[in-house]
Amino acid sequence: MGYYQAGQRGGGLRFSAAFYGGDYNPEQWMGDKNWREIWQEDVRLMSKAGVNLVSLGIFSWAALQPAEDRFTFEWLDDIFEMLAEQQIGVCLGTATAAQPSWLSAAYPEVLPMDEKGMRHKPGVRLNYCPTNEDFRRLSQELVRRLAERYGDHRALRLWHVSNEYGPTCYCENCAMRFRDWLKLRYGRLEELNRRWITSIWSRTYTDWEQVRPPSSIGEHSLPALQIDYQRFLSDMNLEGYLGEVAILREVTPHVPVMTNFHGLTRYIDYFAWAPHQDIISWDSYPRHNATPDMAAFHFDLMRSLKSGQPWLLLEQTSSQVQWHQENPLKRPGVMRLQSYQALAHGSNSVMFFQWRQARGGREMYHGAIVSHTGHEHTRVFQEVAQLGAELKLLEPALLETHMQARVALMMSWPNWWAVENRHTPSRYFNYIAELQHYYRALWQRNIAVDIISPDQPLDSYQLVIAPLLTMVSEEQGAAIEQYVKEGGTFLTTYFSGMVDESHRAWLGGYPGPLRRTLGIWVEEFDPLPPGKMNTLFCLRETDDWNGTYSCEHWCDIVHLEGAQALAVFGQDFYAGWPAITEYHHGLGQSFYVATRPDAAGVDMLINMLQSRLGLRAPLLVPPGVEVTCREGKLTAYFLLNHLPETQMIMLPEPMRDVLTRRVYEQDIQLSPLGVAILIPAY
Amino acid sequence: MGYYQAGQRGGGLRFSAAFYGGDYNPEQWMGDKNWREIWQEDVRLMSKAGVNLVSLGIFSWAALQPAEDRFTFEWLDDIFEMLAEQQIGVCLGTATAAQPSWLSAAYPEVLPMDEKGMRHKPGVRLNYCPTNEDFRRLSQELVRRLAERYGDHRALRLWHVSNEYGPTCYCENCAMRFRDWLKLRYGRLEELNRRWITSIWSRTYTDWEQVRPPSSIGEHSLPALQIDYQRFLSDMNLEGYLGEVAILREVTPHVPVMTNFHGLTRYIDYFAWAPHQDIISWDSYPRHNATPDMAAFHFDLMRSLKSGQPWLLLEQTSSQVQWHQENPLKRPGVMRLQSYQALAHGSNSVMFFQWRQARGGREMYHGAIVSHTGHEHTRVFQEVAQLGAELKLLEPALLETHMQARVALMMSWPNWWAVENRHTPSRYFNYIAELQHYYRALWQRNIAVDIISPDQPLDSYQLVIAPLLTMVSEEQGAAIEQYVKEGGTFLTTYFSGMVDESHRAWLGGYPGPLRRTLGIWVEEFDPLPPGKMNTLFCLRETDDWNGTYSCEHWCDIVHLEGAQALAVFGQDFYAGWPAITEYHHGLGQSFYVATRPDAAGVDMLINMLQSRLGLRAPLLVPPGVEVTCREGKLTAYFLLNHLPETQMIMLPEPMRDVLTRRVYEQDIQLSPLGVAILIPAY
Amino acid sequence: MGYYQAGQRGGGLRFSAAFYGGDYNPEQWMGDKNWREIWQEDVRLMSKAGVNLVSLGIFSWAALQPAEDRFTFEWLDDIFEMLAEQQIGVCLGTATAAQPSWLSAAYPEVLPMDEKGMRHKPGVRLNYCPTNEDFRRLSQELVRRLAERYGDHRALRLWHVSNEYGPTCYCENCAMRFRDWLKLRYGRLEELNRRWITSIWSRTYTDWEQVRPPSSIGEHSLPALQIDYQRFLSDMNLEGYLGEVAILREVTPHVPVMTNFHGLTRYIDYFAWAPHQDIISWDSYPRHNATPDMAAFHFDLMRSLKSGQPWLLLEQTSSQVQWHQENPLKRPGVMRLQSYQALAHGSNSVMFFQWRQARGGREMYHGAIVSHTGHEHTRVFQEVAQLGAELKLLEPALLETHMQARVALMMSWPNWWAVENRHTPSRYFNYIAELQHYYRALWQRNIAVDIISPDQPLDSYQLVIAPLLTMVSEEQGAAIEQYVKEGGTFLTTYFSGMVDESHRAWLGGYPGPLRRTLGIWVEEFDPLPPGKMNTLFCLRETDDWNGTYSCEHWCDIVHLEGAQALAVFGQDFYAGWPAITEYHHGLGQSFYVATRPDAAGVDMLINMLQSRLGLRAPLLVPPGVEVTCREGKLTAYFLLNHLPETQMIMLPEPMRDVLTRRVYEQDIQLSPLGVAILIPAY
Repeated sequence: MGYYQAGQRGGGLRFSAAFYGGDYNPEQWMGDKNWREIWQEDVRLMSKAGVNLVSLGIFSWAALQPAEDRFTFEWLDDIFEMLAEQQIGVCLGTATAAQPSWLSAAYPEVLPMDEKGMRHKPGVRLNYCPTNEDFRRLSQELVRRLAERYGDHRALRLWHVSNEYGPTCYCENCAMRFRDWLKLRYGRLEELNRRWITSIWSRTYTDWEQVRPPSSIGEHSLPALQIDYQRFLSDMNLEGYLGEVAILREVTPHVPVMTNFHGLTRYIDYFAWAPHQDIISWDSYPRHNATPDMAAFHFDLMRSLKSGQPWLLLEQTSSQVQWHQENPLKRPGVMRLQSYQALAHGSNSVMFFQWRQARGGREMYHGAIVSHTGHEHTRVFQEVAQLGAELKLLEPALLETHMQARVALMMSWPNWWAVENRHTPSRYFNYIAELQHYYRALWQRNIAVDIISPDQPLDSYQLVIAPLLTMVSEEQGAAIEQYVKEGGTFLTTYFSGMVDESHRAWLGGYPGPLRRTLGIWVEEFDPLPPGKMNTLFCLRETDDWNGTYSCEHWCDIVHLEGAQALAVFGQDFYAGWPAITEYHHGLGQSFYVATRPDAAGVDMLINMLQSRLGLRAPLLVPPGVEVTCREGKLTAYFLLNHLPETQMIMLPEPMRDVLTRRVYEQDIQLSPLGVAILIPAY
Repeated sequence: MGYYQAGQRGGGLRFSAAFYGGDYNPEQWMGDKNWREIWQEDVRLMSKAGVNLVSLGIFSWAALQPAEDRFTFEWLDDIFEMLAEQQIGVCLGTATAAQPSWLSAAYPEVLPMDEKGMRHKPGVRLNYCPTNEDFRRLSQELVRRLAERYGDHRALRLWHVSNEYGPTCYCENCAMRFRDWLKLRYGRLEELNRRWITSIWSRTYTDWEQVRPPSSIGEHSLPALQIDYQRFLSDMNLEGYLGEVAILREVTPHVPVMTNFHGLTRYIDYFAWAPHQDIISWDSYPRHNATPDMAAFHFDLMRSLKSGQPWLLLEQTSSQVQWHQENPLKRPGVMRLQSYQALAHGSNSVMFFQWRQARGGREMYHGAIVSHTGHEHTRVFQEVAQLGAELKLLEPALLETHMQARVALMMSWPNWWAVENRHTPSRYFNYIAELQHYYRALWQRNIAVDIISPDQPLDSYQLVIAPLLTMVSEEQGAAIEQYVKEGGTFLTTYFSGMVDESHRAWLGGYPGPLRRTLGIWVEEFDPLPPGKMNTLFCLRETDDWNGTYSCEHWCDIVHLEGAQALAVFGQDFYAGWPAITEYHHGLGQSFYVATRPDAAGVDMLINMLQSRLGLRAPLLVPPGVEVTCREGKLTAYFLLNHLPETQMIMLPEPMRDVLTRRVYEQDIQLSPLGVAILIPAY
Repeated sequence: MGYYQAGQRGGGLRFSAAFYGGDYNPEQWMGDKNWREIWQEDVRLMSKAGVNLVSLGIFSWAALQPAEDRFTFEWLDDIFEMLAEQQIGVCLGTATAAQPSWLSAAYPEVLPMDEKGMRHKPGVRLNYCPTNEDFRRLSQELVRRLAERYGDHRALRLWHVSNEYGPTCYCENCAMRFRDWLKLRYGRLEELNRRWITSIWSRTYTDWEQVRPPSSIGEHSLPALQIDYQRFLSDMNLEGYLGEVAILREVTPHVPVMTNFHGLTRYIDYFAWAPHQDIISWDSYPRHNATPDMAAFHFDLMRSLKSGQPWLLLEQTSSQVQWHQENPLKRPGVMRLQSYQALAHGSNSVMFFQWRQARGGREMYHGAIVSHTGHEHTRVFQEVAQLGAELKLLEPALLETHMQARVALMMSWPNWWAVENRHTPSRYFNYIAELQHYYRALWQRNIAVDIISPDQPLDSYQLVIAPLLTMVSEEQGAAIEQYVKEGGTFLTTYFSGMVDESHRAWLGGYPGPLRRTLGIWVEEFDPLPPGKMNTLFCLRETDDWNGTYSCEHWCDIVHLEGAQALAVFGQDFYAGWPAITEYHHGLGQSFYVATRPDAAGVDMLINMLQSRLGLRAPLLVPPGVEVTCREGKLTAYFLLNHLPETQMIMLPEPMRDVLTRRVYEQDIQLSPLGVAILIPAY
């Protein structure tokens, strides 16, 4: 989980209004002869669109420091002033996500090396070695100057460190730092050998210098090495982040600091990074054919990273991107609906990448609020401006609300790396999809969900669901057992409890440290080829638990050691053997799902758990309508109609829609893709 | 388009007969103990097959210069004599397409470097850096000796420089030459920064030395860099070509010079190279499942490259190749039909790769006139000999005819690079396929088509079609507008007028410099995922314009600014918006197609244009029969039956078939795969 | 095939019982605090499972030699003693398949270089250059110490050199050794140029130093170079093997020596290696969806490699692997059935990888007899123990039996490389699948088959089938002709007789040196695209030869030169031309199959040949039941039911089942997946 402890927080963010705006890169236009006019037009249009915050400087290093010994802040001073005059705040980037050309030329070892040993060439962004000392020194010098120059500016709201972290490297400096990291983790080389089981294939290290990063043309036989290197890369990026943060907290202790998460970066362990963010922020780019629960899943993760504190939707596109495999336009109303969905899941902002469409470069066809056409008479600008006007209706009290979830989905980065390790018995693991398989069933029932790490306290939850929890430490296993014994409900699935934190197999019977909690022993597992199905038969049927479901991907052969079978397999030589088990342990209960049921099967499972635990949706809504509840000094219900038809929702009491100010006595009609934010009327 | 100007031409080629023959590599047999007999047998069989030209020396560098200081021309002298005695001409290769092993060993930097920085190893062909000075020096020394030795030989007809150009390289010498090339193009580094929009992602160059070739592990974020590097590679290959040409023109000013084009090489801009060819030549290798219009498309491009001058079919296979994904035999009659199709589109030769099948190497299974069996009693030899006999029937006057096209299809290499740039909003662009989509509809109606560059004069055409013209300079836009104003008809499609010649987006509204000509503004575009369809409804229906068609791939959202909608979309939120527009501008008219219609839709478009403009086929023929017309001192109609059934063609006047010498009064029957060359009988 | 001659054999292996056991890696547990107990438990469980042989030391180099100057044999001494006390024998690995980390660090050139020139990094196994002198020296030093220390140990049964050979390398040392190898093969450089046909593309070598290994970024145009480099790699690995073998034969002349084959390694020519094995051994890992004939094919190859001598099944999995694309469990009974299938095809052992499941590393999820659970109360352990008990019932006389095959399938590694060379006219060749296409039809009829090299004597066979024999030397062609003339029956197919041993095309007419034997001339070939079919019509129909069959992939155009057409093509321009021919030559007959018939077509061919030649199955059995016969002092029929239903087999005489000791008078019922080993009862 990284060896950094959260530092001192900058002051919390207070929201007098939802942030609205986007990435603004005025330096892109300084090559234009009428760039001053473009800037003035930008500010005019921002006001027209209701913008109150822009992200500046994200990629401005070359514009701010054209040579190692020369700084040119003047243009940024001007922009700050122009924005401040219009009461537009600034989220100031530290500009370190893309080093200038002169830097790569002067310090070629700044460029990362791939796992085959090939040094990258200058260009693009995030193209640096995360352990390189020259990069650290030069980026920190810039950050100090930025902090000193703008720290007290009236427009400054927030620091935005680098951008969408994720560099990887396998150079000699990284190898050296990796060895240091391992020494901290394991102490002696003998311990590393013991934990990584290097006795296989004569891999035993007899000198620290022999330990190197993994490589497809070198060591790729040790899952433990792979996973530790992934931990290391996350930590080295975090160390780079914290190097900038330390300066910002020193110079501007009053300004909050964060970096933006995006795309569920595989190399960045968000749970390890979250304590070092003053506020969580997220770049949201769902694919055009993603179902709405997939965005919700990410939103809930963001909200959960800091225990339900409001977070920021920092980027989304107003129309389309150019980098997905397929890039159709967002249909009218979709951008608005997606924006409110973020708010419904705890965001306090709606921001876009980017303000004005770039004239060149890789993202020149990425949608923007102001398109290449350049004026405001476009569908997209009008939709953005309409949303900007609406957001002003949100009362500050609404922005201080939180969501309460009694259900947690357990997720962990090292576990992700372990599940999708190429040396498992199945090539068809998709950890995130498996999490979403369970998440979707909860979302469809409008049950609020937190997404938590196995190292977090569980006691505030009625139900914890941990699909594919293959990597479980002794301590994590004990915490889960304690949680169940004290009355919690825990559900896990096949391929769980297989390895410890060093990816050593648990001996003595799967699922290792979860075995006692679940009351089972998994003797064998049968990874099914794609298309091969088995069947689940529910036993002890009730109104809430019945039927037959198909299942796929994997079947465990489970012995009951106290647990009872809730469902059995219908086919193959293990027909009649337990497929879903239930166990009462202490004051709580635990469930084991020995396969991947189809969607209907997972829905029946959640139905049964909802019934047993009395889990409730905030309001009763028809299918396709999403409802969430944010609570604080006031209680707000967010209603989102994801369907192309009007939907009617019955209300338990009269409510007022914040967006229309209308009061609804008994029911409310939501138009296609429509939204309402309801507050009890009296 | 490259900075080379066409040099002095060698004398034009006069055709007393169509060239017939192929690549002949006698040096491949010198390792054989009875090689003299093989050569004598070759010459005997050539006479039997009607051969009058062979390409010699294409890959003979090692045989001509076995060491840097040793030349061995004697064997080539002998071959020249043997051929001359049989009145067989020689197209003499400069032998520089594959350097000898000793050269790569002595000058390792001759070997090219890939974009990751990996130096190639010796071997294969075209395996050299196009800017390498040692390669240039040594190849030019050889060329001078060849020119001096054979320039006055009575068998010499033509110089064939190198072969199928296309080397690419990313070495330090290329980087240096690229910077020089850019300095010529942009002058100051500030201008390059401005044109490439390097302000994105801090890519600004502050020293020329920072500018490097693109790389998948370096700079790949700047479309402008990618496109300029492609221009540069085409130019550097052209510079190498011109280095050889200069010597040939100096020593043998009376002998025409060319190199052969093939496979629509992406890295070689044919329009830039064509002025430097004394005659255009083409290697034709259609896939077995290509429709006949695809070969015709390439033939028409070759003919157009030098304004309709006769060109040479320099290579085709008599039976099959070994390097396509699938390599079935050409069925009996297919080779003959394909040969006449080339003549029908302006070729004055039919030549093959190769004469005698190789005994080893990569192409040992490539078909040849004389197979491994070695004698003439084969189907393939007999078909070749029959065709050789037929070609002798072609009168010289027929070879001095030209084709007249009133329709032009616009094509450009830089535009190709821009359309298929990986950073556009669609991964599914296929520029050549889009050109062929329109070409096919014209071909099916037997309307003659030139294929021209946007930099060529348009005034001789009634109709110019420019699909996917995404890259348009100010000057090109103005020329198109002038053409329309003066009465021309212009049609273009979606994703046109997006960027200037430096791949900067056109601001102020798409389609940029074409907007006034088309009378529209494209506000947005919607790239559709594969399989997603929309519908075109024709408005203002007439006999020549009616119906409903499906369309796919892309839909623009078009505002009419003077233009009228000819068809509208049927689905989605832009249902009812213009899908095809028409605009009268000056004396002419322009059309915009905001999507990709299906084949029937494109056919209806061409039908309407044909009707409005009175475009006519040379003769009326049934579907599946192709007809072209070559005109000069005589008028010849080429009839080609692509179907496996006999077809009857009505004749407007009595005509004589050149191949059978028969006169047909009213009609002619074409047998399956049959051919006729008709000349008015009286 | 390779220039090594078989050395002096170690004494043959005498089998008092079938070997039973598996790979045992006790050093993997020495990091555990209770490792002594684990070892004791291992030995207890081995006895319980009926184990009598374990493979030790396969990957123990690091454990035996933790530094270049330090050896630690003590733990191995202990294991030897513990095993010997329980009468468990040892197959001792030379431990050289994976060098220790210290070795790669001290001698970095031990690491192999890929064909692009990239040096591998330390890690995994088989990660060494097969020509490296340091690797050879150090591995041989270890081998000598092992031989001296354990050569006389009472537990030692067999030496197991390295493991699953197959390293490849393209480094400068390999290039140098390759040149030496070529000098031995070709003598003068001129001869190499002549054989490789380097005159193509100016590839002529003028100095030995110019000759380099093939490379995808260098020379890949010469099939002859590719094939010779594959021969060279097989030979260099063999040289490394023989380096170890020489020491073992010197120090322990009484102990047999072998290495294990696996997976039909493309780079290791088993026919060249077999003479240097004292016994053949095989690691059997059929895919879960492989039909049972595929395992049988490999078993028959193993048996044939040393003329029918018993061989060893050295590895299989008791349950599943983790490295196939799909890794379902072996269903109950499958492991037993597969084990007996090996015995049925001449194996005298059943062994597993591995004894105890690894706790880490790449194969930690590979099945094992003792799973991570660690005790014997598992399905897998019980099945293994049951089989161990059964195998004790096999009489020693049964282990001295051999199989007699009157049919041979011809296979050759260089031919494999030639057929699947990327420069042939078809991308769809799969040599092994084509062999199996014919093998399957023989197997289904329970006709015993040897799999032999074209260099082996043919005179003991009634029928020799040589599919896709594209590479045929003059000598091989003569031997086949001699075989036919003296009464043999020979069948070959399309794409045969194309090239000589240097991959030079045969001139004068395909199929080159087989043409006279077959009485045909193949003028042309037509490689069909996938999905394109033709039809075979049988001519001269009889009860044993009739019908119409589809065929695909390839059609030859065949002229009869004495042969008669047995079937003709039904479609295309060669409809009516011969598709299958028959020729009587001397006392024998030959058949040519000019296409790939479907399975029914091949079955009809084999049916006709079986009928003509009187080939017989050992017993008549229903489809899905396999029967083989091992003969010696006694005659044993192995019956294997591959179906999930009980099958009844009629017996020609009363027989006794070795496994149940029951006598069956007239018939025997085989349960699903059931096995019987029948010996005539009286």
